[in-house]
Amino acid sequence: MSELRRDPVLGRWVIIAPERALREEKLVVPKEERNPGPCVFCGGQELLDPHEIYAVRAPGTFPNTPGWLVRVLPNKFPALRIEGDLVREGVGMFDLMSGIGAHEVIVETPDHSVDTADLPDWHIATVIRTYRERVNDLAGDDRFKYVLIFKNQGYLAGATLQHAHSQLIATPAIPKRVKEEMTESRRYYEFKQRCVFCDMIRQELHLTPERLILETEKFVVISPFAAHVPYEIWILPKTHSCDFGTISDPETEGLAYALKQTLLKLRIALSDPPFNLFIHTAPFRRPRVGYWDTIQQDYHWHLEITPRLTRPAGFEEGSGFYINPSLPEDAAAVLRATKVP
Amino acid sequence: MSELRRDPVLGRWVIIAPERALREEKLVVPKEERNPGPCVFCGGQELLDPHEIYAVRAPGTFPNTPGWLVRVLPNKFPALRIEGDLVREGVGMFDLMSGIGAHEVIVETPDHSVDTADLPDWHIATVIRTYRERVNDLAGDDRFKYVLIFKNQGYLAGATLQHAHSQLIATPAIPKRVKEEMTESRRYYEFKQRCVFCDMIRQELHLTPERLILETEKFVVISPFAAHVPYEIWILPKTHSCDFGTISDPETEGLAYALKQTLLKLRIALSDPPFNLFIHTAPFRRPRVGYWDTIQQDYHWHLEITPRLTRPAGFEEGSGFYINPSLPEDAAAVLRATKVP
Repeated sequence: MSELRRDPVLGRWVIIAPERALREEKLVVPKEERNPGPCVFCGGQELLDPHEIYAVRAPGTFPNTPGWLVRVLPNKFPALRIEGDLVREGVGMFDLMSGIGAHEVIVETPDHSVDTADLPDWHIATVIRTYRERVNDLAGDDRFKYVLIFKNQGYLAGATLQHAHSQLIATPAIPKRVKEEMTESRRYYEFKQRCVFCDMIRQELHLTPERLILETEKFVVISPFAAHVPYEIWILPKTHSCDFGTISDPETEGLAYALKQTLLKLRIALSDPPFNLFIHTAPFRRPRVGYWDTIQQDYHWHLEITPRLTRPAGFEEGSGFYINPSLPEDAAAVLRATKVP
Repeated sequence: MSELRRDPVLGRWVIIAPERALREEKLVVPKEERNPGPCVFCGGQELLDPHEIYAVRAPGTFPNTPGWLVRVLPNKFPALRIEGDLVREGVGMFDLMSGIGAHEVIVETPDHSVDTADLPDWHIATVIRTYRERVNDLAGDDRFKYVLIFKNQGYLAGATLQHAHSQLIATPAIPKRVKEEMTESRRYYEFKQRCVFCDMIRQELHLTPERLILETEKFVVISPFAAHVPYEIWILPKTHSCDFGTISDPETEGLAYALKQTLLKLRIALSDPPFNLFIHTAPFRRPRVGYWDTIQQDYHWHLEITPRLTRPAGFEEGSGFYINPSLPEDAAAVLRATKVP
């Protein structure tokens, strides 16, 4: 029997319909071949794209030369551009603004042959600290209201290059989904005087641990109550903070460990599925945002992973409802039981 | 140079980034093979699924026998079920309701070998009148707040069966996307005292006709200003009405003609792409909906077509922004120029 579950953070109802799993193709996507490289992101190929914005590199090495661990480049086909003023105008009844923003690629390793999950914890922590550096740098640009850090792994998740990389896009407007989370988190806070994420962490740890995948010293990994796709995963910091940009070095190490364990569990349990990953954090707290007064209390940064195991269809597109043919409790049980070597 | 465009109906910003088309695979999806049939939806196979809910059939023929033009069946793997009471409950901080609703399949023809676009106008009009019948029948069930009519054509659009069919799902809550359209349309109406869709029709016909694909006596076919995917298409009735359920017989014929022309143009211009199609109409006007007082003035039913030519990725998933690598004006020019034999 299916049920509708409400996501307490987004305020979105999701249809959980395990019977429909019978109709679905198996939740395993065929593994794609890895091309041999080298590619433009490889160590030794720096001069193919000598526009290094930032890098973590060995002392004494120079920009656009080998010796780096993590390297940030402008996206070659940017969705938004850094140059120019933010102009707003009307076209009859319609509204548009210029495509001002930033679109960067974070190359996670010089090695073409590995995925994020293959990197050692300390290397993943370096990638996460690079995210933090870039977010805090872009926060200085008054034209931007938000930076979304995200990653596409696998063709079906939208990746065009296989070499391990993440991306960020800084936008001149707060993204709709972040706004929805902020609105709903604030409603919850106004009603309860507590953070909805902190409440969720407490409940999933102590009251309903059937959706818990992993608990570490500083992080909790769950399959959310109203998961909108099979094997959706959230990684939440136990310490309340609205702002990913303030993550401490020890927390980056804790997040690296939790993320690596989670990605390995996903790889082992589901044969290396395509997935998207992103970090949700509070917008830059400029007064005009209008949320900066209480957002420190009512919002809580976190990381979400969306495996791509099912196909989107017309009902989802037309209604905004999602149909998830897999129980989050079942997904969590599988991932909890998956042993990482 | 990319730009952000605001969808005046959804209040959603879309990034229109034509430069990114250079990076994208060509906007043509390989045609899938058609399986030979017969299948459970074929004429002559009625006893494989003898649960006919409704049919348009030749006089003197009986349910679950041949002789039908359009036949409605319950979905074998329903997302929501018709039986039971709508129960709402809490699980700690979380909320859920029972999966009550209706999930039906509208088989558009007994012939396995044709798509909607191959049917004659009068047959498509019969399919549309069947939509109307089912919506108005389900409106009588007080547990339901909405019926979404939709269609998935092609594997990448989520179709599991190739035989031409549409579906409907009746839901116990108003879908999020419809609510967003209602909210934004009402804001527009409150500001302008005019329907946002009627204004859009006037502007696209007379002021900025570069997004016009087709104009018929009763309908306007456009590529919307803030199209969120390449070749997104809206079909709008010229006569203002919030409620698809009140469509007149002549209007069903007009819609059939506009839809067939549009689907043929899509097929010819883009090599028969996978697509989703759905109808957006006002929710059943029960007092508790809270919108029933002005919705007759401020909402306008319409049909949307979303071709599936690009892959969703982490930025879309994490932000709710869409990046469309194709200018709606270019898509409209291509479709406008595509001659239908």
